[in-house]
Amino acid sequence: MEQAQGRPTRRQLMHAIGLIGGTAAVYQMMTTFGHAAETRFDGPPQLTGARKGARVVVLGAGLAGMLAAYELRKAGYQVKILEFQQRAGGRAWSLYGGDRYTEMGGAAQDVRFAKGNYLNPGPWRIPHHHRTLLHYCKAFGVALEPFIQLNHNAYVHSTEAFGGQPMRYRALAADFNGNIAEILGKSIDQKGLDQQLTAEDLDRLKEALRGWGLLDKDMRYRGERASRSRGWALPPGGGVNGAPKPSEPYAFGEVLKSGIWANLAFFMNHEFQTTMFQPVGGMQKIGDAFARQVQGLVVHGARVTRLMQDKAGVTVTYADTLSGQVKTEAADYCVCTIPLTVLSQIETNLSEKMTAAINAVPYSSSVKIGLEMRRRFWEEDQEIFGGHSFTNQEIGLISYPNSGFFSNGPAVLLGAFANGPGGYHLGGMSPAERIEAALAQGAVFHPEAYRKEFLNGASVAWSRVPWVMGCCARWNEESRRDHYQTLVAMEDRIVLAGEHASYVGCWMEGALLSSIDAITRLHKRALEA
Amino acid sequence: MEQAQGRPTRRQLMHAIGLIGGTAAVYQMMTTFGHAAETRFDGPPQLTGARKGARVVVLGAGLAGMLAAYELRKAGYQVKILEFQQRAGGRAWSLYGGDRYTEMGGAAQDVRFAKGNYLNPGPWRIPHHHRTLLHYCKAFGVALEPFIQLNHNAYVHSTEAFGGQPMRYRALAADFNGNIAEILGKSIDQKGLDQQLTAEDLDRLKEALRGWGLLDKDMRYRGERASRSRGWALPPGGGVNGAPKPSEPYAFGEVLKSGIWANLAFFMNHEFQTTMFQPVGGMQKIGDAFARQVQGLVVHGARVTRLMQDKAGVTVTYADTLSGQVKTEAADYCVCTIPLTVLSQIETNLSEKMTAAINAVPYSSSVKIGLEMRRRFWEEDQEIFGGHSFTNQEIGLISYPNSGFFSNGPAVLLGAFANGPGGYHLGGMSPAERIEAALAQGAVFHPEAYRKEFLNGASVAWSRVPWVMGCCARWNEESRRDHYQTLVAMEDRIVLAGEHASYVGCWMEGALLSSIDAITRLHKRALEA
Repeated sequence: MEQAQGRPTRRQLMHAIGLIGGTAAVYQMMTTFGHAAETRFDGPPQLTGARKGARVVVLGAGLAGMLAAYELRKAGYQVKILEFQQRAGGRAWSLYGGDRYTEMGGAAQDVRFAKGNYLNPGPWRIPHHHRTLLHYCKAFGVALEPFIQLNHNAYVHSTEAFGGQPMRYRALAADFNGNIAEILGKSIDQKGLDQQLTAEDLDRLKEALRGWGLLDKDMRYRGERASRSRGWALPPGGGVNGAPKPSEPYAFGEVLKSGIWANLAFFMNHEFQTTMFQPVGGMQKIGDAFARQVQGLVVHGARVTRLMQDKAGVTVTYADTLSGQVKTEAADYCVCTIPLTVLSQIETNLSEKMTAAINAVPYSSSVKIGLEMRRRFWEEDQEIFGGHSFTNQEIGLISYPNSGFFSNGPAVLLGAFANGPGGYHLGGMSPAERIEAALAQGAVFHPEAYRKEFLNGASVAWSRVPWVMGCCARWNEESRRDHYQTLVAMEDRIVLAGEHASYVGCWMEGALLSSIDAITRLHKRALEA
Repeated sequence: MEQAQGRPTRRQLMHAIGLIGGTAAVYQMMTTFGHAAETRFDGPPQLTGARKGARVVVLGAGLAGMLAAYELRKAGYQVKILEFQQRAGGRAWSLYGGDRYTEMGGAAQDVRFAKGNYLNPGPWRIPHHHRTLLHYCKAFGVALEPFIQLNHNAYVHSTEAFGGQPMRYRALAADFNGNIAEILGKSIDQKGLDQQLTAEDLDRLKEALRGWGLLDKDMRYRGERASRSRGWALPPGGGVNGAPKPSEPYAFGEVLKSGIWANLAFFMNHEFQTTMFQPVGGMQKIGDAFARQVQGLVVHGARVTRLMQDKAGVTVTYADTLSGQVKTEAADYCVCTIPLTVLSQIETNLSEKMTAAINAVPYSSSVKIGLEMRRRFWEEDQEIFGGHSFTNQEIGLISYPNSGFFSNGPAVLLGAFANGPGGYHLGGMSPAERIEAALAQGAVFHPEAYRKEFLNGASVAWSRVPWVMGCCARWNEESRRDHYQTLVAMEDRIVLAGEHASYVGCWMEGALLSSIDAITRLHKRALEA
C-alpha cells in the first residue's frame, strides 16, 4: 500500500550536503533558507532480511506497538502482539454511541451520542509536520480533514477580566497588538530606543508598528482602523443604511488581565500551527487502520504480569482477562510499548537503572468531556465554526466540532479539556458530576443555549483509564538528563517504545518515531546476534 | 427549503433593547459584551403581497439579480431576468477542464484541467460572518468546506529581504513578535513607559511580553524558547537521537524589511479571519444553486442596450447575442444589477445625478492564474496544506488548494492573484505570457518543482472580462460622500443592486445585502403606488 518515491529522500540530500560541509553546514543551510527539516521522518524504515526464524513479541497494540509489528513482520520476523484491551489503537480512541466504558473505580458510562458523533478522549488533532503519522494515515487509508485550530471568532474568558464576561479572541488579540504597537511607537518618539536600533531600522519599525497595530496617522490605536480587525459595532451592509459603525477598543488594563497574550503564544506554538488535521469519523479510525495491517497478530485480553529475559530469549507471562487463565509467550526479542505507569507494576528482570528510569517519569492527568447538543447554536447564533473558546476555569476550554458544519441535528462539543489541578479535580468526580461541572462552567460562553440544548454526555478521566492510568509521560529537564537514554536503550533483548520514549511526548508522532528508532536498533542487534 | 426559526431574530432583540435605551445603548451593550452584531443579515426578507399583476425586470443573473428574482417571485411578482452570458452566476464563477473562455481582445483559452480541478477567477473564499451568503448556500444546498486562510508554514517572500529568499511565515512572525516584545521589555526597564501605564499594568505587561514573545528569563528572544514557535533546526524525534536542536532567530533588520507585519495585519483583518469557507467543487456551484432557484426566469444572451422609464413603466431594449435580433421587455419595475462599468455605456433616462454616480466609481483590475501541477509538491516536499505564500512580485501570492489534501494526481495552484499595477501589467499580457510570468515568479517558492511539475494553466484578467470589464467597485471616502446615496436610492421605477451598491464591496455578501435592501424598498414603493 505504500508508495515508493522516485525522488532522493531528505536524508540522502542532507547526507550529500553533509559530505561537503559537515552536519553544522547542513543545519546552517537548512535554517538560513527557511527549509529546516520539519520532521525526523524520512520514509518508512527499510528493514529487510530478518534473522532467520527470529520471533518478536510486542507488548501493546497502540500505534507504537502496531507499527513495530507491521514493519518487523514485513522484514521477515515472526511477530505476536499482546494487548490488554479488546480493542486496538490504544489512546488513538473514540467513544461512539452504543459504547460502554468502565473506568477505574467501577463507574460505567453508556455513551448515547447520535450516529456519526464521537468524543476523542485522547489525541484529537494532527500537526501538518507530523509526517510519520501522516504517511501511515495515507498508506493505511485513513481519510483526514482539516482541524480548525485557530478561530478568531471564538471566545476567551477569564474570571479576572471584564467582570467575568467572555470576549471574542479577535477583539482581544487586535487590542493587545494595537496597544503594544502604540506604546512602542511612543517609546520611539521619546528616543528610548536609539541605542538598540539604527535610524533606518527605527523608521522601518515605526512603519511596521503602524501597519501591524492598525494605528492611525497619529500612531494611535482607535476606532475606525481598529474595527477592521477587532470587528465593528455595526458591520458594513448593503444599500441605504450600509455604512458601518466602528467599535471601541477595550481598556488595555482589562486586555492584559484577560491573559490573551497566552492565547496568542499558544496559536504560534509550532505544534498548534495551521494547518492541522483530524481523521474523518474520529481518532479511532487511525487505531482501526493500523489494526487492519496487523490482523491475526494480536492477542486481545492479555494482561501482562511478568517480563523476563535471559541468554535464550524473552518470556512474557500474561493472564487472559476473560478466562483468568495464565499463559506465557516466548520470543527472541521484545518491543515493550506498555505505558510506564503500568510497566512499573509489572515484574521484570530489567536492570536497576532501567527500572529506575521506568519509575522516574510521571504521567499527566487530563479529563475530556463530550457534550451532545440538540443543535449547533455556536454556529447558528454566534458564528463560531470549529476552534476553541478558552477559560481559566477548570474545564480549560470548550471546543467546537470541525466536521458537519452548517448541518442540522445533534452535535458533540468538547465540553472540557482539563489539565493540571483541574484535571485531577474533575477526574475525582463521578461521570455525572463531571458533566454537571462542564455544563456549569461552559455556560459562560453560551448562557442561553448551553443547558437548554444539552442532550447527553460522556467523559474520560485519564488518571482512571485502566490500561494507562494517566494521559502521557511528562519528562522534565532533570529526568531527561538522568533517565532518558537509559529508557530508550535496548537492554539485551528488550527495547521500549512509545510516546514516552521520545522527545515528541504526548503525540502519536512521538510513539511512531520512537517505534521506528526502536525496531531499527532491534533489527540491527538481531543481525549482529 | 428555508427553515423558519422559532427564536427571536437579532433585529427583534435589538429592537427590544433599543426601546429601553435607544440605539446607542444597543451598540454599547452589544460591543461591551463581545456580542456586537457580526452581520446585517437577519433572515431572508419577508416580502408578501406583491402589487397585483406587477412585473419586475431584473438585469443580470449574478447573485444580486438572482436573489432579487427569487425573493420577488416568492412575494408574488412576475419576474424576468435578462442576462448577457449563456451561464448564470456572474462573478461566482469557476473554470473547469473543457471550458472555453474568450476575453476582450479575442484571446481564447481552452481549459485543460483534470476532472474535479478548477480555478475560481473571482470570489474564492467566504468569511464566517457573511451570513446572508451562508444562509442561502444552506437553503439552496451548496456544500461548503473549510478554506485554509492562515497557514503558518507557507512562505513570505520579498525581493528586499534575505537576499530574495522566501522564509516561512511562522519564523518571520515569531521573530517579529519576539523582537517587539524584547524591545518593549527594555523600554519598561528603562522606565520609558512610567507615564503611560500604572505600575500594576507595567508588571502585567512585562509578564505578557515574556509569554507572548517567548522571551527567556532575561527577557531575551532567542534559541530554545523561540524555536517552539519559529520551528527547530532539528525537530524533536523519538528514541536515542530524539533531542531537538534549536534554530537561530533571523536578524531583526531583515525581518522588518520582509514586511511580515503586513501579513500579520492581513490575517487579523476581520474579513480574512478564520474560519473561512469555500464551496465544494468551485465557486460556480453557488451560481448554479442560485440559478436552479430561478429556472425558467432567465433570458440568456441578452445584451441590454437601453433602459428607459416613464410614468407607465420601464422598457428595456436588448440584443440577442446569438441572433443579433433586437427585443424589448416591458415591466413595472427594474432591479438593475449590471456592473457600473457596463451600465455607464448603456443609454438610460436616469437622472444626471444618478448618471454621475454610475460614472464616479472606478473598478479595480485583478488577474488570477490557475496552474495545474502534476503532483502536490507543496504538500509532499514542503508540508504546506492550503493557504498562501506571499510575494512582493506582481503575482502577489500563490495559493494552495484547500481540498483533496494528501491526494495523488494533478492539482491546481492559484499561481497569481495580482492587484494594483501588477494586475494591469499581467492583464496586458497574452494568456500564454501570463502563465510564463506566473511560473517565473512563483518558482521563487518552489524552485525545484515549479516548472518541472507544470502541466497547463488558465488565466482571467478582470479588465478584459467582456461582461464586467473590471473586478469590482472601488469606492473611496470622497465618492462615498458625493455619490453613494444617489446610487442606491430608488429612482422612480428603477433601483440598482450589486456589490457596488454596498459597503461590503467586492464580496458576494455585499451583492446579496444590497439586493435585499433594494427589493425591500422596491416592494414598499410598489405597495404605495
